[in-house]
Amino acid sequence: MNQSEKFNSTMNTDLSDLNSPLLESVIQAWTELKTNQPLVHIITNAVASNYVANVLLAAGASPAMIDNPFEAESFATIASAININLGTPTSEQMQAMQITAQTAQQLSKVWVLDPVGYGPVLPWRSEMVNTLLQYRPSVIRGNASEINGLAGNQGESKGVDSTLNSAETYLQASTLLEHCECVAISGESDFILSKQMNTVVKINGGSYLQPKVTASGCALGALIAAYCAVSENVTTGTVAAHIHFAIAGQKAFELASSVGSFNVAFLDEIFNLKEEDIQQYADIEILPL
Amino acid sequence: MNQSEKFNSTMNTDLSDLNSPLLESVIQAWTELKTNQPLVHIITNAVASNYVANVLLAAGASPAMIDNPFEAESFATIASAININLGTPTSEQMQAMQITAQTAQQLSKVWVLDPVGYGPVLPWRSEMVNTLLQYRPSVIRGNASEINGLAGNQGESKGVDSTLNSAETYLQASTLLEHCECVAISGESDFILSKQMNTVVKINGGSYLQPKVTASGCALGALIAAYCAVSENVTTGTVAAHIHFAIAGQKAFELASSVGSFNVAFLDEIFNLKEEDIQQYADIEILPL
Amino acid sequence: MNQSEKFNSTMNTDLSDLNSPLLESVIQAWTELKTNQPLVHIITNAVASNYVANVLLAAGASPAMIDNPFEAESFATIASAININLGTPTSEQMQAMQITAQTAQQLSKVWVLDPVGYGPVLPWRSEMVNTLLQYRPSVIRGNASEINGLAGNQGESKGVDSTLNSAETYLQASTLLEHCECVAISGESDFILSKQMNTVVKINGGSYLQPKVTASGCALGALIAAYCAVSENVTTGTVAAHIHFAIAGQKAFELASSVGSFNVAFLDEIFNLKEEDIQQYADIEILPL
Repeated sequence: MNQSEKFNSTMNTDLSDLNSPLLESVIQAWTELKTNQPLVHIITNAVASNYVANVLLAAGASPAMIDNPFEAESFATIASAININLGTPTSEQMQAMQITAQTAQQLSKVWVLDPVGYGPVLPWRSEMVNTLLQYRPSVIRGNASEINGLAGNQGESKGVDSTLNSAETYLQASTLLEHCECVAISGESDFILSKQMNTVVKINGGSYLQPKVTASGCALGALIAAYCAVSENVTTGTVAAHIHFAIAGQKAFELASSVGSFNVAFLDEIFNLKEEDIQQYADIEILPL
Repeated sequence: MNQSEKFNSTMNTDLSDLNSPLLESVIQAWTELKTNQPLVHIITNAVASNYVANVLLAAGASPAMIDNPFEAESFATIASAININLGTPTSEQMQAMQITAQTAQQLSKVWVLDPVGYGPVLPWRSEMVNTLLQYRPSVIRGNASEINGLAGNQGESKGVDSTLNSAETYLQASTLLEHCECVAISGESDFILSKQMNTVVKINGGSYLQPKVTASGCALGALIAAYCAVSENVTTGTVAAHIHFAIAGQKAFELASSVGSFNVAFLDEIFNLKEEDIQQYADIEILPL
Repeated sequence: MNQSEKFNSTMNTDLSDLNSPLLESVIQAWTELKTNQPLVHIITNAVASNYVANVLLAAGASPAMIDNPFEAESFATIASAININLGTPTSEQMQAMQITAQTAQQLSKVWVLDPVGYGPVLPWRSEMVNTLLQYRPSVIRGNASEINGLAGNQGESKGVDSTLNSAETYLQASTLLEHCECVAISGESDFILSKQMNTVVKINGGSYLQPKVTASGCALGALIAAYCAVSENVTTGTVAAHIHFAIAGQKAFELASSVGSFNVAFLDEIFNLKEEDIQQYADIEILPL
């Protein structure tokens, strides 16, 4: 029985039996990322671009932030995976997002949608997010406020930071699986809803300092794309990115307890991650959807 | 007699008697910032955006860099305070700045104007700054060259770095108080001209490395907005931001003597600031206007 | 015999005899950079802007990222040198690039072209690069893939990272000297083709971590401009920037072996460079062109 068959048999097994094969797939994805250095096409916000590029380089990927509409199609065509982030959109970025998502769908490329700031306060981007959904992202990732709003539920958002708790909202996000393979909600614990596995993967770890470093979530979205480019399936890629992030955050916090030095240590630990770290630190629970 | 009455009685008192109540207000503002995490709407330049967001998160605020004209009004409406910085304007940012400033004035929100690069060499932004003045910023902050030029005085500017000394120019800036509540000039010492207190607050501290870290001034402008969102008045908020910055800079320099590690330590110290630090390190003088 | 005469007599001398006078010129350029703090007009990409500004400030220059078409001409007029980088162009940046390059040529200012991502996959920017060549950049710098493609040779590029080796491609880049004074190719070793000296300067040093920090090449391009602003000629300025970078990278790696802390140490070492470091660490070879 291969990994996929194991995943697909969730209805018949104790869910905790899936931990071990899932972690094996994650380790394999991590090895592939280092080896293949996939090219990731990233359209992201002005705040995040430097940080996201550094996180992806540290993890082993090759990021490129091409965000103009004139090169979007040709670059999406050669990229191994794509991340579209709505943080600080410009008119040209908006055009590029649509072309890129459309190209991704046509070529069956993995693409990750990060609907930063989704909600009634920011209608321009929220309409674009709704448009982008028709190009069927592989993964939708966001914080609890964004994902909750996108799933059509009421709730208050405050700018780009969440006012909701991931643990309280994740089950309400399952309707979003009609648009994508995985929904990933970041928070104190991260929750990944997988259509393929028909389960939720809860990932613990990280540090309370993570939300004090701007663009952490944006970097996570891009790292999901990087991992999906080399993973056997979207669920494994999404889980692998979250585990990589959570372990690096946890180890960084052991070394540094304030935000400036934490951020330096975090990049170090993203770069330094080893197979043994995944085995020792990965803290996941598989829950019913 | 409450703080405001104390401030308003400056004509009748020895100015040094105001130090203590001002520092008490600053400590209160610092507590409020940590507690309330005000949402700050920031339109800033491409160089500064990541750094500014990290400084504000470290200080306890919730920054969001929404800089498109299509969401400017609705976001300014929900923000607690606003910072507009002219560093690397685009046409869309320019439109967003005007809408945002107008909204701020209509809703009586605190907004901070940072006229980066103001001067005859950069006419496009300088004209926009002149336009924005009609929406009555709460605070105008800049380096000595920018503030001097904006006050209608002659002087040479060199790009975005100042060629003038804050101590020699601050009194010439008092005409700008017709447009705003406070004028803040950063430099080796910072000078804050307060219309309400009818005094100048001189703030010592920081480090000679500060101008070697790009976007320090931009981050200070955004931090002023964050503090004003939670302060009893604009003078207290402006002074509090400068004191927070100056202490963090001074403490960081005790830990790190080169720019890369200084910058890391600076973010750490912005995050770590405690009430005792304000009491121990704050170095202010109140001077006649 | 002055430095230039020594350089110009390469046909008649053992090339290694040129090392010493070249390093003397580099030390002089380094002194001038610290003393004169030249204003560098930089049009660069969203990923790089903060990092590039910090590297230039650390080295002693005064960077300004003015990238709108409305201020491009007047700012290029007052700048001491210019750097144009095609990393993440917008329509407005593209207009600004053309105005700036044209102004530079008209005023005989040093300007450095960094054709990031040049190649058939990214036609919009590649056409702009071809247009900019008519304004005769002083220096063209890039990685091996970009320079090889620009020189009209076949080769595969992968986004913005190179798939070619600088040592294998540098001689094929000599045709580009019809457009400029120097061609600089960064890689494990850097190669600088000088029309004036009719030689290639090979520079060793740096660290394998350098390409793991995003925008390193972009910062190097801007530093070339900064050095050229204060150097006796473009070759010296280009070599000086590469030596400064290579030594800082090598020394940083002695202090830090992971990317986050390496990057902090690198900025520290850019700032801390001393004359003795250049004498002790500079590792150059002068080769025939």
